[in-house]
Amino acid sequence: MMISKVKNAMSNLVGGMMPHGHHHHNHHSGGQTCGTDSLPPRFPYGRPDFLDLTPELLQYSTEHASRPVLTLKRGSRLPWQTGYAEVINAGKSMLNEDQASCEKVFVKKPSGKHRNSTLLDQNGDGTGIPLHFWGIFDGHAGSGAAIMASKLLHHLIRDRLGEICHLLENPSSAPPICLAKNGSPYQAEAKKGGAQEPEDPDAVSDASVRFYMEKVVSLESLVMGVIETAFKQMDDLIEKEKSSYAISGGCCALAAIHLMGKLYVANAGDSRAIIIRNNEVIPMTNEFTPESERQRLQYLGFLRPELLGNEFTHIEFPRRIQHSELGKKMLYRDHSMTGWAYKTIVEDDLKFPLIYGEGKKARVMATIGVTRGLGDHDLKVYNSNIYIKPFLSCVPEVKVYNLDEHKHGPDDVLVMGTDGLWDVTTDKEVADAITAYLSCCDPSDPMRYTLAAQDLLMRSRGVLKERGWRLPNDRLGSGDDITVFVIPLAGHESET
Amino acid sequence: MMISKVKNAMSNLVGGMMPHGHHHHNHHSGGQTCGTDSLPPRFPYGRPDFLDLTPELLQYSTEHASRPVLTLKRGSRLPWQTGYAEVINAGKSMLNEDQASCEKVFVKKPSGKHRNSTLLDQNGDGTGIPLHFWGIFDGHAGSGAAIMASKLLHHLIRDRLGEICHLLENPSSAPPICLAKNGSPYQAEAKKGGAQEPEDPDAVSDASVRFYMEKVVSLESLVMGVIETAFKQMDDLIEKEKSSYAISGGCCALAAIHLMGKLYVANAGDSRAIIIRNNEVIPMTNEFTPESERQRLQYLGFLRPELLGNEFTHIEFPRRIQHSELGKKMLYRDHSMTGWAYKTIVEDDLKFPLIYGEGKKARVMATIGVTRGLGDHDLKVYNSNIYIKPFLSCVPEVKVYNLDEHKHGPDDVLVMGTDGLWDVTTDKEVADAITAYLSCCDPSDPMRYTLAAQDLLMRSRGVLKERGWRLPNDRLGSGDDITVFVIPLAGHESET
Repeated sequence: MMISKVKNAMSNLVGGMMPHGHHHHNHHSGGQTCGTDSLPPRFPYGRPDFLDLTPELLQYSTEHASRPVLTLKRGSRLPWQTGYAEVINAGKSMLNEDQASCEKVFVKKPSGKHRNSTLLDQNGDGTGIPLHFWGIFDGHAGSGAAIMASKLLHHLIRDRLGEICHLLENPSSAPPICLAKNGSPYQAEAKKGGAQEPEDPDAVSDASVRFYMEKVVSLESLVMGVIETAFKQMDDLIEKEKSSYAISGGCCALAAIHLMGKLYVANAGDSRAIIIRNNEVIPMTNEFTPESERQRLQYLGFLRPELLGNEFTHIEFPRRIQHSELGKKMLYRDHSMTGWAYKTIVEDDLKFPLIYGEGKKARVMATIGVTRGLGDHDLKVYNSNIYIKPFLSCVPEVKVYNLDEHKHGPDDVLVMGTDGLWDVTTDKEVADAITAYLSCCDPSDPMRYTLAAQDLLMRSRGVLKERGWRLPNDRLGSGDDITVFVIPLAGHESET
Repeated sequence: MMISKVKNAMSNLVGGMMPHGHHHHNHHSGGQTCGTDSLPPRFPYGRPDFLDLTPELLQYSTEHASRPVLTLKRGSRLPWQTGYAEVINAGKSMLNEDQASCEKVFVKKPSGKHRNSTLLDQNGDGTGIPLHFWGIFDGHAGSGAAIMASKLLHHLIRDRLGEICHLLENPSSAPPICLAKNGSPYQAEAKKGGAQEPEDPDAVSDASVRFYMEKVVSLESLVMGVIETAFKQMDDLIEKEKSSYAISGGCCALAAIHLMGKLYVANAGDSRAIIIRNNEVIPMTNEFTPESERQRLQYLGFLRPELLGNEFTHIEFPRRIQHSELGKKMLYRDHSMTGWAYKTIVEDDLKFPLIYGEGKKARVMATIGVTRGLGDHDLKVYNSNIYIKPFLSCVPEVKVYNLDEHKHGPDDVLVMGTDGLWDVTTDKEVADAITAYLSCCDPSDPMRYTLAAQDLLMRSRGVLKERGWRLPNDRLGSGDDITVFVIPLAGHESET
């Protein structure tokens, strides 16, 4: 049955369109209510362009029974000789909901007239400041948001950087705090003492503080701000375009951006990136899950109880409470606590906890297992009118790695992977596998990073036995979609 | 003039009472409005009991011109041979607003009838589980909250631990999730599938999740929860007793609790504790300041704008905006951002920023420079009706150090100090000074930790020269109150 469903969907795919009104995504996490069944998709389903799949291979890629590992073809080159591999899940969704992009673009001043229409522009004349972008997008409840983000996020980042292009070109001076409309620094005259706000001159006592404190903001933190706000813009764009297109689901987003000698790693979700240098692991992301963001979510539920729709309590309990336990004492923790204490159970505590479950099974409002990402604007608690989106953040955490501060050998890499990889393979295991694999490869083989990515994937997917996908140690392999980039850090030295 | 003010205050002090209606605290951080001028203080001003000061020495301790360093007397012993030293500020407040306590108490089951009246009980018959407590309380805008916390916080912790005494006596089994009213574990029968909530059986889809997930909570995290909730209880008690007593100001609170082989370090404010082991520094606290808690505070201001009273904006700018800059672009960051971006300045941005200033000068609503602590219930923005308290948290961050996991020599210590110490002396300098000092002391001298604390204090206060209090390197010494505990970690081996 699974196969026939796939075939059916694929016949539509190959025609370049997803079947309208086709729903395959609401059995796992609460339904996405779309009154949008008659809308066309924003982008058709497909795999990353750089894989250059034929329609036959595209269909082959969705065989849940064999789970073929797709890699870059020999001869097709990504910037920095980036390695790439992917594999579909074991059946939890019909299509691979992971997406990826890898692009080299150029940052330049916006040319007045096209300001708002450059989103899909290509690289034009190849002038400007080069920017390398790697993104992986782990979709859920559909592929729409992941596909759209993989096509557009790097353009949003490029365009926002374009607005501060004149500052990037002058990296030795700190960014001006205030800009005139034409973009040139604006220096307000410093007035001594004089009351600035006639409406309430006494509101603040120390006038001198007002005018003479001035924080110095680094160019690096300006780039971080660009990335943070571009994620927000991407999320807003998904929401906006949902009125004209069917854009299903949501996605975790992990992006690495190389600009002017620095690597910015931005993560919103439960994907992960690590740098492996000299076989040492340097973590470049934290995961954002109901457990890691418990206190932020509980705080929101506490301050805005109406978002809980009278169905949920912001307090966490170690298990569900039964009605017969009213008046007894139970362990709990609220938004302010790290430890646990006992409280007397009252009627309100019988509601379902906002955060519930442990590890991979932890959920927000019994619905979703990640707390940051793009999309999900329509996501509701099953059979209710309660929206999840207010609890999700689209803002990534950005970490910066200065490539110029270290010397990198050919086996030093950045590994980016969706949670399917990390669920079954630890950071240390990944580092050991990469180091062992690369040390056996010809250092001049441009395929070595793709082969290393493929090796990682095989280790995490395993092979199909009678009792499911199994790893060599007989533990269960990952049944999830898996996507991996292996990016050599010495790569930027060979390219400008 | 300063001297005569002090003399005047001291004559009251020595009589055991603070002068009613005496205000010396609203020139630094916004006023505490008390309609409580006619109320008696909850506890009279004084220095820690263990210093055993005569009235003359108490008065001497407040001489801002000489800033005498007070230490434990030779012969007076604190548990574990704890060392202690303190010094008053250089004139910013008439009295020393730091307070400290060091106590050995015993945790035992509450005896039915006295449940709520044990707060000031002494140790009774010396049975129960021994608990060592060290607390430092850095007051602001008055000493009331700091004094009250130094007298009561350890009793609240002891009493709350008493409620789980039967669990502490049985440390090998995990705490039960649910307790019956008599305190014994309550095991709800596990029902399979059956709808538990007749009012809305469909609210959550997966019934099996409800009844079979059960988090295991460790005894350690239960003790953490006790400490967190005891801080909250202390804060509530200050608020409650303000209706009957004058309890001025607020205080940062840093507490170390030794219980059953573990050291729990709980911090709410900008005091700091470090462990020095083998001359290595192990940080045991993070500081909670407008800068470190910027995003939490901005988030609250964003979600509850009414708390900003139409005077403040939750957005941060690197400097004050002038009216003439409307329409221009300025760097900003909101609650979700770590980096900076430009935004067009609108009318609303002319309000004063919720978080403003840098480093030690950063303030919440131009009023207070710490964001966690006890008290401050009446604290308002100067000349306004805007309360600060909603932005302050009374919940400490608790870190645990397992004493039994390490072997400690006589020079391995926990150093606890108020910000006056750390403002001028780094962790590394403190570690080097302690290690150098102790290595020259007779290891059997019970005064060695007090002498080391005194040495730290001298290094941070400096000596009075024509140009103020100066350190040996001629940098400015700390003009703040300073309080230091030096606690030998091998101490617990010599005592039960």
